Amino acid sequence: MEKIVVIKYKDIKLKSPILIGGLPGIGNVGKIAADYIVEKLNMTKMYDIFSQYLPPQVFINDDSVVHLVRNSIYYKKMRGKHDLVILAGDFQGTTQEAQYELSYQVLQIAKEIGVSMIYTLGGYSIGKIVDKPRVLGAVTDKNLVADLEKNGVVFPKGEPGGGIVGSAGLILGLGMELFNMNGACLMGETSGYFADPKSAMEVLNVLQRQLGIKIDMSDIETRSKQIEQITGKMAEEFQNKQNKEDLGYFG
Amino acid sequence: MEKIVVIKYKDIKLKSPILIGGLPGIGNVGKIAADYIVEKLNMTKMYDIFSQYLPPQVFINDDSVVHLVRNSIYYKKMRGKHDLVILAGDFQGTTQEAQYELSYQVLQIAKEIGVSMIYTLGGYSIGKIVDKPRVLGAVTDKNLVADLEKNGVVFPKGEPGGGIVGSAGLILGLGMELFNMNGACLMGETSGYFADPKSAMEVLNVLQRQLGIKIDMSDIETRSKQIEQITGKMAEEFQNKQNKEDLGYFG
Amino acid sequence: MEKIVVIKYKDIKLKSPILIGGLPGIGNVGKIAADYIVEKLNMTKMYDIFSQYLPPQVFINDDSVVHLVRNSIYYKKMRGKHDLVILAGDFQGTTQEAQYELSYQVLQIAKEIGVSMIYTLGGYSIGKIVDKPRVLGAVTDKNLVADLEKNGVVFPKGEPGGGIVGSAGLILGLGMELFNMNGACLMGETSGYFADPKSAMEVLNVLQRQLGIKIDMSDIETRSKQIEQITGKMAEEFQNKQNKEDLGYFG
Amino acid sequence: MEKIVVIKYKDIKLKSPILIGGLPGIGNVGKIAADYIVEKLNMTKMYDIFSQYLPPQVFINDDSVVHLVRNSIYYKKMRGKHDLVILAGDFQGTTQEAQYELSYQVLQIAKEIGVSMIYTLGGYSIGKIVDKPRVLGAVTDKNLVADLEKNGVVFPKGEPGGGIVGSAGLILGLGMELFNMNGACLMGETSGYFADPKSAMEVLNVLQRQLGIKIDMSDIETRSKQIEQITGKMAEEFQNKQNKEDLGYFG
Repeated sequence: MEKIVVIKYKDIKLKSPILIGGLPGIGNVGKIAADYIVEKLNMTKMYDIFSQYLPPQVFINDDSVVHLVRNSIYYKKMRGKHDLVILAGDFQGTTQEAQYELSYQVLQIAKEIGVSMIYTLGGYSIGKIVDKPRVLGAVTDKNLVADLEKNGVVFPKGEPGGGIVGSAGLILGLGMELFNMNGACLMGETSGYFADPKSAMEVLNVLQRQLGIKIDMSDIETRSKQIEQITGKMAEEFQNKQNKEDLGYFG
Repeated sequence: MEKIVVIKYKDIKLKSPILIGGLPGIGNVGKIAADYIVEKLNMTKMYDIFSQYLPPQVFINDDSVVHLVRNSIYYKKMRGKHDLVILAGDFQGTTQEAQYELSYQVLQIAKEIGVSMIYTLGGYSIGKIVDKPRVLGAVTDKNLVADLEKNGVVFPKGEPGGGIVGSAGLILGLGMELFNMNGACLMGETSGYFADPKSAMEVLNVLQRQLGIKIDMSDIETRSKQIEQITGKMAEEFQNKQNKEDLGYFG
Repeated sequence: MEKIVVIKYKDIKLKSPILIGGLPGIGNVGKIAADYIVEKLNMTKMYDIFSQYLPPQVFINDDSVVHLVRNSIYYKKMRGKHDLVILAGDFQGTTQEAQYELSYQVLQIAKEIGVSMIYTLGGYSIGKIVDKPRVLGAVTDKNLVADLEKNGVVFPKGEPGGGIVGSAGLILGLGMELFNMNGACLMGETSGYFADPKSAMEVLNVLQRQLGIKIDMSDIETRSKQIEQITGKMAEEFQNKQNKEDLGYFG
Repeated sequence: MEKIVVIKYKDIKLKSPILIGGLPGIGNVGKIAADYIVEKLNMTKMYDIFSQYLPPQVFINDDSVVHLVRNSIYYKKMRGKHDLVILAGDFQGTTQEAQYELSYQVLQIAKEIGVSMIYTLGGYSIGKIVDKPRVLGAVTDKNLVADLEKNGVVFPKGEPGGGIVGSAGLILGLGMELFNMNGACLMGETSGYFADPKSAMEVLNVLQRQLGIKIDMSDIETRSKQIEQITGKMAEEFQNKQNKEDLGYFG
């Protein structure tokens, strides 16, 4: 078996496409954002990527049909100068080799379809819930910084301290060194304790400004508020419980 | 060394064969069921599959002869429209790559011998002992559901929640996506705490109806009852012990 | 880099050689026995096997020179019908793939030099110290049993229960299935808690009778006695300590 | 993707170059020393080595640009008989295979550019802080010992007991067995608890004498003193705390 099996569904000419990558990861920020764009822009599937670098697993759909885990690439013809291409999927590669091979495969496709710029989306774990998650950036060329800053991305020195682990970083690094492609990584701050639509929303807000596109944000806003209520309630209960215990202790 | 070494013992023409796969796994349900069919139908070995994807281990037979661990494929000529082919073995592949490569190898053989439909057998761990294990299903095509339901398979939405991990799911997923083969997975409910012939028996009951075949079930019924007595006795002793401890505590 | 690099030092014609394999493992029984034969028969190195299937490590010799870890094959011309070939080494392969690839490599060499019979040596862990370790056997052909029994090997049914894991079993299993070679595994009983020259000595005693060869056993007898004294002293101290504690407890 | 991607920046003829390897490891002694030479001799980058044998990670530079992790080789034309080549990098290979493949790759480059002698630098963990770390040696040829001893390297028998694990040992071992290259490993004693510039300084002192070169040591001396003050203060505080606790206990 080939280690990676790419199935191409559409042989279509795209206009200087921009690739956006969002796979599962910290707070699932990248995945939530990428899946949301695919859904809201009603994008068309272009490629499926099956691989032994992904878990040996099928999911079961609502109609009881098995879904072999995969990464997929979707496209959307846009009015502006750049068509849009999204990398989404069920898992990141599960080993070091898997990470490199799958990222390299995506870059080969990107090159083949003429991708002009890459944005990878991810989460940046800060270990606590914040009201207004920042979106941190990293780039392949320092000339990209100014434009992103204008659109709300921050570039604090020394953050993230350990760099970027996984596909969000690797696609940029390999793209820069081996494919001569430019790109930026957008990382939404997240507690890292649960799937975080609020952080994904902030990433999407930045991305819309950066790309000059418009996505209907109502659904993800609703989901963010639901999560806020749950986490807010949890915090409250925790506080109440502590108060009661304190009373009990002293009573 | 080739990563997988297939040894073919019989070059025989089979009539639109149905492949049934049952390897070790949760409650060993799939393995118990598959081995039972091989034994009761007195099936003939067609292939041995040796591989470095299996543990570096030999078992020792009763005559002190070593048995290199393997997967094997057996066949049986049947009167009806479909001959029968069984995948059985000592282990599943032990890594992610192993799972993909061995499942792919089985599918290549399935294609070569003209397999028309695949059933994979497995266990579905529910963490407790049940009187009457259900048999859950998942399919490669929703049109397969009705027939299976008629024969006693259930398709509860959202179960199993995590999908199917390992060869029982992967053979279906790869078969569907890369080999254009149809199949169904039959999962017997099991506590998951021990090898479970009762669950395997329920899977075999469903399978007989589905395939219109007849297997002598007396041995597996006996084994199921033995296990029931053991687990029943364990539960009873546990209850007695608890009662005594309760008495002791209050006495 | 080739995954296995074989360096051949001697291109010599051997007379229907017998291969004896003894690599590190349980109680280091196989390694101690194999290394002892190499030393006492003053055997000549024929092959070095370097490989990334072994740890990335060098040892440092007494003259401060590094020794890259390896497996090696030694030979000795004998008067009888069979010359002797020994597989010895610093490590077994460290992964499943490593085990298969290195065992297969050894078998390829065995085939090339015309090996007529294989004996693999190992330990069988029984979790306690025994006065007189038995030597258990497993074979590739049941016709080999009688002769080995005559020379002191025992074949208790169901032992070792889990079969044989690692190169001692795999070389036999692969030799039997893929190389059509016969062989036997000789396993000396050992506590498994320390390197066990006494168990190795018993294995060597059996092997001498089986092969009709004579090895000077004085050194390994001395080492066995030293180990016996140490473990005996440990047991005694443990007993004394227990007695004192008992006295203290009641005193 | 190739498992190792070598990018050559300079095609330059070097004069019987000496290769010095210093990658991350125990106390980071080798890396600190190698990076220091690159910086102080203002060496020029000759090769980048990217690989899936390294973590799937990018670091982020001060200008927010991603840095794909790598190993690199630098050179410096020297006045004496030997030019200088340094192997430095972000990580060692992360698996056994990675260690062998990357070391082999470095040796292939070494051969191609005509390297005449190899020094690998590393740390030797002794589990405690020492005032004056010794520099231990191991060689590929015992004739190399005398010269190194003259320059301050010690060769205590039986140290390091477990040999040398990782690239510092493997480059020597593979160089010796498969490339017919000579080399020595210089190991600075270190507690192993933190990055240890003091141990690296001692290694550099030896190396300067051995190679007859002169490196400005003022910066690393400063860093060593800073570390000494921190570890000294920590030891003092620990002592004070113990004294107070003792007083408290008796007071």
